[in-house]
Amino acid sequence: MDSEQFKNFLFRTNILDASYPVRGAHVWLPYGFQFKKLVFNKLETMMTDAGYKQHEFPRLMPGSSLRKIAATVKDFSQNVFWLKDGNKDTDIFLNPTGESGIYPMLRQWIKISSDLPIRLFQVGNTFRSHHRPYPLINSDESTPLLEGHGVFRTRQEVINEFDAVLKILEDMHNTLVIPYRMVTRLQWGNNPVSEKNISFESYFPPKNVNLNIGVAYLQDQIFSRIFDIKFESEGSATEHTHQLTFGINERALAAMLAIHSDNYGLRLLPEFAPIQVVLIPKPKLHEDYGIEKYTKKIIEKIRARVYIDKNKNRTVKQKISHWRERGVPLLLIIEPNDVQNQTISASTRTQNIWQTVSADDIEQTVLKYFSEVEKQIREDAEFFLEEKTKAAKSRDELVNLVGQNYIVKFSYCGSTECGINLERDSVGEILGIGVKEKEHGKCIGCGNESAVVGYFSRRAQSP
Amino acid sequence: MDSEQFKNFLFRTNILDASYPVRGAHVWLPYGFQFKKLVFNKLETMMTDAGYKQHEFPRLMPGSSLRKIAATVKDFSQNVFWLKDGNKDTDIFLNPTGESGIYPMLRQWIKISSDLPIRLFQVGNTFRSHHRPYPLINSDESTPLLEGHGVFRTRQEVINEFDAVLKILEDMHNTLVIPYRMVTRLQWGNNPVSEKNISFESYFPPKNVNLNIGVAYLQDQIFSRIFDIKFESEGSATEHTHQLTFGINERALAAMLAIHSDNYGLRLLPEFAPIQVVLIPKPKLHEDYGIEKYTKKIIEKIRARVYIDKNKNRTVKQKISHWRERGVPLLLIIEPNDVQNQTISASTRTQNIWQTVSADDIEQTVLKYFSEVEKQIREDAEFFLEEKTKAAKSRDELVNLVGQNYIVKFSYCGSTECGINLERDSVGEILGIGVKEKEHGKCIGCGNESAVVGYFSRRAQSP
Repeated sequence: MDSEQFKNFLFRTNILDASYPVRGAHVWLPYGFQFKKLVFNKLETMMTDAGYKQHEFPRLMPGSSLRKIAATVKDFSQNVFWLKDGNKDTDIFLNPTGESGIYPMLRQWIKISSDLPIRLFQVGNTFRSHHRPYPLINSDESTPLLEGHGVFRTRQEVINEFDAVLKILEDMHNTLVIPYRMVTRLQWGNNPVSEKNISFESYFPPKNVNLNIGVAYLQDQIFSRIFDIKFESEGSATEHTHQLTFGINERALAAMLAIHSDNYGLRLLPEFAPIQVVLIPKPKLHEDYGIEKYTKKIIEKIRARVYIDKNKNRTVKQKISHWRERGVPLLLIIEPNDVQNQTISASTRTQNIWQTVSADDIEQTVLKYFSEVEKQIREDAEFFLEEKTKAAKSRDELVNLVGQNYIVKFSYCGSTECGINLERDSVGEILGIGVKEKEHGKCIGCGNESAVVGYFSRRAQSP
Repeated sequence: MDSEQFKNFLFRTNILDASYPVRGAHVWLPYGFQFKKLVFNKLETMMTDAGYKQHEFPRLMPGSSLRKIAATVKDFSQNVFWLKDGNKDTDIFLNPTGESGIYPMLRQWIKISSDLPIRLFQVGNTFRSHHRPYPLINSDESTPLLEGHGVFRTRQEVINEFDAVLKILEDMHNTLVIPYRMVTRLQWGNNPVSEKNISFESYFPPKNVNLNIGVAYLQDQIFSRIFDIKFESEGSATEHTHQLTFGINERALAAMLAIHSDNYGLRLLPEFAPIQVVLIPKPKLHEDYGIEKYTKKIIEKIRARVYIDKNKNRTVKQKISHWRERGVPLLLIIEPNDVQNQTISASTRTQNIWQTVSADDIEQTVLKYFSEVEKQIREDAEFFLEEKTKAAKSRDELVNLVGQNYIVKFSYCGSTECGINLERDSVGEILGIGVKEKEHGKCIGCGNESAVVGYFSRRAQSP
C-alpha cells in the first residue's frame, strides 16, 4: 500500500479524514478517535504508574521563552506559528513542544530542595509547519504529543532517571507492539539542546522510510540555566536543577496502523480495538429459531467491547469482510443449529479460520483468542523490522541498500568526519548508534577499527 | 471570597495556576486536571449515550470559512487569533468554536438522504481573545469546550432534536449539580446565527455575576446554506440540511468549584473527586498496634479512590484541615482502639461531625456517606441560586437589585423596544426569557400586559 492508498484506507476504515481544508491537519473519525483514546489512556496510565503527574499547560506560549532559547541554543522563531489577535501581532506562539510554557512555571514553583524531584507530563496537540505534511507522520497539528519532564537535584539523579525513562519508553513500544531499535543520535551541530538524545526508531511502510517515535533528551542543566530554574541547596547556595524530557506522539498510532495491517486491512490489538468482538446472528428465512435469546445469553458472558451486527442490508459475507478490514480481533457467527448445539462459530482476524467452539466456556475462549491475536501481531511486527534491516559490508553496499529503502546496519568508527562523508554519498542519513550493541570490525567509511553499530536509512522528517 | 482570592484558592488547592506568562491562559495542576478529566469523561459518556459520536477536528481553521460566514451573517475575523508561519501571514485561524472546521467536512460527507442524520461531538481547547480574561470564565484559551452538532433531513426532525438536546444539557447540569435557569436569549441584532438560542444561566460568586454555561442553537438552514451542505432528497432534487449545535465548556468547572465551596474550601461531589476518601492512620507513640494491617483490610473493602495519608511531617489536625480544604468527600481516621473494636472514625466534608462506624459494613457506609454529601451539595446549590434571585415590581427596583448583584426576575412584555429601554437605565442586561415560565402581570417597562418572565443581571462576558 503506497502513501496515497494508505490515506484512503484510513478514511475507508473510519480512522481519519486527511482531506481537511487546512493542509497538514486531519479529522479523527469516530472509530479512529476511539482507537487513539484507548492508546493514549493506556500511555497516561503508564506515566502515572511511573510517578509522573498529569498537568495541562496552555497551547499559547510566551515569546519571551523563545528569545531566551535563541540567545543560548538556537533561534526557533521561524519554525513556529505566531499569533495575531485580529490583525495585531502578538508575542504569543503555538506550542510545538512544552518547554517554553513549562520552564517559566518550574522557575516559579521550585524554590527549595524539598520542592524536588518533580515528575510531570502532559498530553496535548502541538503545532509545527511542515514542507511536506503527511497525516500522523508530519502533521502541522500533531494530535497529540505526550511529553514527560523530570527535574532533579543532582546530576546523578537525572542520569538514573534517564535510564528509568528509557525503560518507560521501551514498555510503551512493547505495549503498543511497535517494533523498534534504540539509537543514540549523533549531535553534529553546535549548541546541542541535550547532552544525550536517544530515540526509538521503527519503519513506516507506506512511505518506505524509517520512523522515529519515542525520544528522550538528557538536558541536565542546559535549560535550567536558560530559564534560571534553581533551588536553595545547602544553606543559602543556589544551584540549577538537573532535567530531562521525553515524549511519544501520534506517530505511534501511524506505526501501529501501518505495521500491524495486512492485505485485507487493519489488524488491531485487542487491548486497543474500539470493537473487540463482532457477533453476527444469522437467522434463516427471516425466522429467529431462538437466535436472539441465545445471542443475548452469549453477550452476557463475554467481557469485552462487543458489537452485534444485525444490519439487514448486508450479507454475512459482506459483514465479515467489512469487519475484517476494520481490524476487529474476533468475529463470531451464530446460526440456528448453534442454538441447538450450544455452539458458536469463531474466527480471529489473524488466523482467519472458522472454528466451532462451545458456548459454555466462551468467556475464556475469547480471552484465549485475544492472546493469540496479540501474539501473532507481535511476531509479525518483529519479523517486519528484521526484514527491513540489512547489514552492509562496504560503502557501496550501504548506498545501494538505502536506495532500496532498507535500514542499513554497518560497522562505524563513530567519528563525525566519517559520518558526514557517508551521508554525502547516499540518500538518507545516519539514524544513530545502536544502544547496547557492540561491533568488532572495520568502519565501512574509513577502515579504522570500529566499536559501534551505525544505522543508516531514508527517514521521515522529525515531527 | 472575591475574584483574586478565588484565584489564589484554586492555586492553593492544586486546581490551577493562573500566573502563567501568557495573559488569559492557565495551567491545570494535577488535582485540578484529574477533577476536570472526571467531569469531561462523564460528559463524553452522556453524549455517547445520547447517540452523538466523538470526532476530533483540527484547531487550525481555514480562513475561507470565515469569509463565507462574513458574507451572510457577521464578520468574525477580528475576534479570532490568526496564524503566521514564522513571519509569513497564513489564511489559518485558531478554533474559537467548531463550525468553520466541521461544516466544510459535512459538505463532503453528506451526499444522499441516507447519510443523515449525523450526530457528532468533539471536546477540545478553543481560542478567543478577551479584554478582561479570567481563568475558566473568560479564558483566551478555553480548556476545553465540548460541542455537539446535529444534522437532519427535515425541519421537524431538527426541532424534535432541539428538545432532546435541551434535555441532554439539563441532565448535564443536574449531574454536575450546577443550579441553573433556562432562558431563551433575545436576538436584537440583525442576521442572527440561529433561529432560537437557549442558554443555561447560573451565577459565579467570586465575580458576583450571572454566568451562562450550556447553550443550544437551533440553526436550521442558516449555516447549511452558508456552507452549501445539502443532500439528494426525492430523486434528483437537493435540499439544504437542517442543523443545530450546542455546547458546554470549562465554565461548568468554574461553577462547580465556586458554588459548591464553603468557607473552609472546596467541596467536591464524590463522583468527580480525584480522591474520594482520605484515610489517616493514627498510631500512638510511633508504635503500630496492628494499625497497618487493619488499614489494609479496610482499604480492600472500600470501592473508591482512596488516599492513605501517612505523612509524618503533619499532625492529624493539619491533615484534616488540608484535605477538607481540598474538598475530599469523606475522611476516615483509624486509631489503635479502632483495631480492637473493629471500628473507624468517619466525617463527611459536608457534615463535619465525627462518627464511629463499624468496619464490617464499611463498603455500604462509604456509599451512604457519598450520597449524603451529594444531597447536601445539591440542596445548598439550589438554595444558593434562589437566594441570588429577587423579583422586581418596578423599573427602579430592578436597577437597585441589579446594582446589588442580584439576578432580577420581572414581568416583561417581551418587546425589543422595552428591553432596550430597561437596559439603558441599568448596569447589566436582559439575560433572556424564562423557558416554560408564565407570568400574568404588567410589564415593568411599559405597563402593558406581560406574558413572559424576564431575567436581568450583571453578567460575565460570553466565552
